[in-house]
Amino acid sequence: MIQTLRVDLGDRGYPIHIGSDLLTNAELYRAHIHGNQVLVVSNETVAPFYLDQVCAGLEGFRVATLILPDGEQFKNLEILNRVFTKLLEERFNRSCCLLALGGGVIGDLTGFAAACYQRGVDFVQVPTTLLAQVDSSVGGKTGVNHALGKNMIGAFHQPRCVVADTNTLDTLDDRQFSAGLAEVIKYGLIRQAPFFGWIEENIDHLLRRDSATLVEAIERSCRCKAELVAADERERGARALLNLGHTFGHAIETGTGYGTWLHGEAVAVGMVMAADLSARQGWLTAADVERIRRLLSRARLPVDPPDAITRDRFLDLMSVDKKADDQGLRLVLLDTIGSARICSDFDRQLLDQTLNLERRTSAL
Amino acid sequence: MIQTLRVDLGDRGYPIHIGSDLLTNAELYRAHIHGNQVLVVSNETVAPFYLDQVCAGLEGFRVATLILPDGEQFKNLEILNRVFTKLLEERFNRSCCLLALGGGVIGDLTGFAAACYQRGVDFVQVPTTLLAQVDSSVGGKTGVNHALGKNMIGAFHQPRCVVADTNTLDTLDDRQFSAGLAEVIKYGLIRQAPFFGWIEENIDHLLRRDSATLVEAIERSCRCKAELVAADERERGARALLNLGHTFGHAIETGTGYGTWLHGEAVAVGMVMAADLSARQGWLTAADVERIRRLLSRARLPVDPPDAITRDRFLDLMSVDKKADDQGLRLVLLDTIGSARICSDFDRQLLDQTLNLERRTSAL
Repeated sequence: MIQTLRVDLGDRGYPIHIGSDLLTNAELYRAHIHGNQVLVVSNETVAPFYLDQVCAGLEGFRVATLILPDGEQFKNLEILNRVFTKLLEERFNRSCCLLALGGGVIGDLTGFAAACYQRGVDFVQVPTTLLAQVDSSVGGKTGVNHALGKNMIGAFHQPRCVVADTNTLDTLDDRQFSAGLAEVIKYGLIRQAPFFGWIEENIDHLLRRDSATLVEAIERSCRCKAELVAADERERGARALLNLGHTFGHAIETGTGYGTWLHGEAVAVGMVMAADLSARQGWLTAADVERIRRLLSRARLPVDPPDAITRDRFLDLMSVDKKADDQGLRLVLLDTIGSARICSDFDRQLLDQTLNLERRTSAL
Repeated sequence: MIQTLRVDLGDRGYPIHIGSDLLTNAELYRAHIHGNQVLVVSNETVAPFYLDQVCAGLEGFRVATLILPDGEQFKNLEILNRVFTKLLEERFNRSCCLLALGGGVIGDLTGFAAACYQRGVDFVQVPTTLLAQVDSSVGGKTGVNHALGKNMIGAFHQPRCVVADTNTLDTLDDRQFSAGLAEVIKYGLIRQAPFFGWIEENIDHLLRRDSATLVEAIERSCRCKAELVAADERERGARALLNLGHTFGHAIETGTGYGTWLHGEAVAVGMVMAADLSARQGWLTAADVERIRRLLSRARLPVDPPDAITRDRFLDLMSVDKKADDQGLRLVLLDTIGSARICSDFDRQLLDQTLNLERRTSAL
C-alpha cells in the first residue's frame, strides 16, 4: 500500500510517499540522491531498529552514518556541529546528500545541517514518528533550539523527498504516538471539519495503530500541510495557520525545559488554550471547546497547562515567538472547528483570563 | 562624492553606495530598515571609531549593539550563538534588522545570523575594510568557519543595502589594506584586463589611500562582482570565477590556523599559484605570471606559500574545498590576464609541481 502526494513548489517541489513496508523499497529514496555520498543521521533509539535496512537500500553509494543522542534537549547548535564535523571528516562535498532517519528532532537538525553545509546540500526525510510524518518532515522548516527559545535558529530548506513508512510507528512508545495525534487533530481544527469528525470516529483504530487507518490519517494531514506550504512557502500568510496551539505550546516547552513535555503534548494544551480564548472572544461555542478537549483526551493527550508557568511567564515566553512582530503578538484562533484565522486584535484581558484560569478550571 | 550601483536580483536586489563621508549620511541605510528594531554588530577594533556615528544615524529605532572580539579565529558557531543570544535577550522579532559594521568576519557572521534568526531577517552591510568593501559585503555569501574548513557552514542571504564609506579605510592598518588590494587585483585578472592595467598605473595612489582613486577601484570591483552575482546567485557557474586563488588560499588559511594569514594575503599567494599552474599548462605566458607577481608585490602582498604546508597537506586541505565535487577538484585558472576559466581537467602532475616547487623558486 502506497500513497504519493507532491508538494508543489516549482523546482523545489518533492514527493511524499506514505505507506507500509516502504523502507525496503529503496528506489523511493535512491531516485532522489544525485551525488554519490550519503550521510545517514539517526538517533540512539531509532538506529537499532531501522538503520541497517536503510543502509542496505543505499548499496552503491558511499554511505556514512552518524548516531546522535535522542531528545529535544539535543536539538541545539552544539549537536548540529557534530554533523558538520562528520561531513568534513568524511570529506563530503557539495554534491552529497543527508538522509534524516528519525523523528522531528533528527529531521529538523539534519535538514538545517543540509541547509548550511557548504551553503546548501540535498537531504531526504525518512520520518519514523507520527509527529514527523504528519508535520515536521513536510514543508522545509528546519532548525535548532536556543536556550531562550524554541526553533529560533533555522532555515527554509525543502527535502528532495519524504518517505513515511507506517511500519516504523510500531516501535513508537504510546506517549510519542499520542503526541503525533495532536498534530493530526490540528489539521481537522484549522481547515477540515469533516476530517475532525473522521478522527473522532476513528480514534480507537488510530490508537490501535491500524495500518490502513494510519495511512489515511497521514495522507489527509500531509495533503492539508502540502496545500498550505505550496500557497505560502515562507510563512508570510496562510501557512501560519499551521501554528494553531504552537505559541502557547512553545512557551510550555521552553518554560518547562526542552524534553520535559513532548512537542505534541504542548501543542495539544496550546490548542485547548487557543480554543478557550476563541470562546471567550465569542467566536467558538463552549460545546466545541468541550468537543476539542474530549478528542484530545481520548487521544491520551494533556489538556491543561502546567501550574508552574504563571501568566507573566507565559507572556514573557510568548513575546519572543516568531509569530510576534512590531505590531505585537499574533495568535491562531478558531471561528469554528475547521476554520482558523491569524489574529492580532484579540482582547488582552481575555488572554489574561485564558493564561490565568484555565489550568485550574474549565472556565466555560 | 557618492557612486551607487545595484545588484540585480529581482526582489532580492539591493544598492551598493560607495563614497566618502557616507556614515553620516544615515538616510542611505535608514531607508532599508523596515522594522523598528536594529542590532548593530561590530568588533572591538572598529566600534571605537565608528559605532557612535552609526548609532546616531539610527535615532528613532530601538537600537541594541553587540561588540565581538576581532579576528578570523572568532568567525565560528560559538560566537555566532552570541548574536542569537543577544537578539533573544532583546526580544527581537522577525521584523528586526541586523547591521554589520566591520570587516569580512563581522559581515559574514552577522549576515549568517540574519539568515538563520527566526529563519531569516533583514540585514545591512557597512563594510569598514577594503576587503569587505570590494568582496565579502557584496553577493550574499554568509557563514562561519569550522575547525576543519573555512566558510564550510553558511547560507546565501542578500543584504538590503551596502554602504561602503572610504573614510573608514583611514583607520585600517597597512596589512589589512593590502589584503583588500588582493581582491581588487583579482577582478582585473578574471575579467578585466584594462582594469588590471589601471591598477598597475594607480597602485601608488591606492597605497596612499587617495579617496577618488579608491572610490573608482571599489566601484569597478563591485560592478564586476555584481554582474557575476546577478548572473549566477548561487554559484552554479560563472560566479565561481570569483574564487580565483581561493582554493589554494583557503588551504593556506586553514593549514596555518585562522588568523595567522589574512584572507587577502592567502588569496594573493593562491592567485600566484593559479597563475603558475596556468603557465605550466601552457595557457598563461611566463611574462604574465611575472607581471602578476610584480603587481601583488608592489601592493605589499606575499607571493609565495608557507614552507610549512607540504604538497600532501595542500592536497588534503583542498579536497574538502567547496569547489570540489564528485568529479574531483575544480580550480579557477587563467588563459590570459583578464580571462579566467573554471577547470577540472588540469594536469595533476603539473599541480604537484606547483604545490612542490613554487615556494622554493620561481619555476618559470
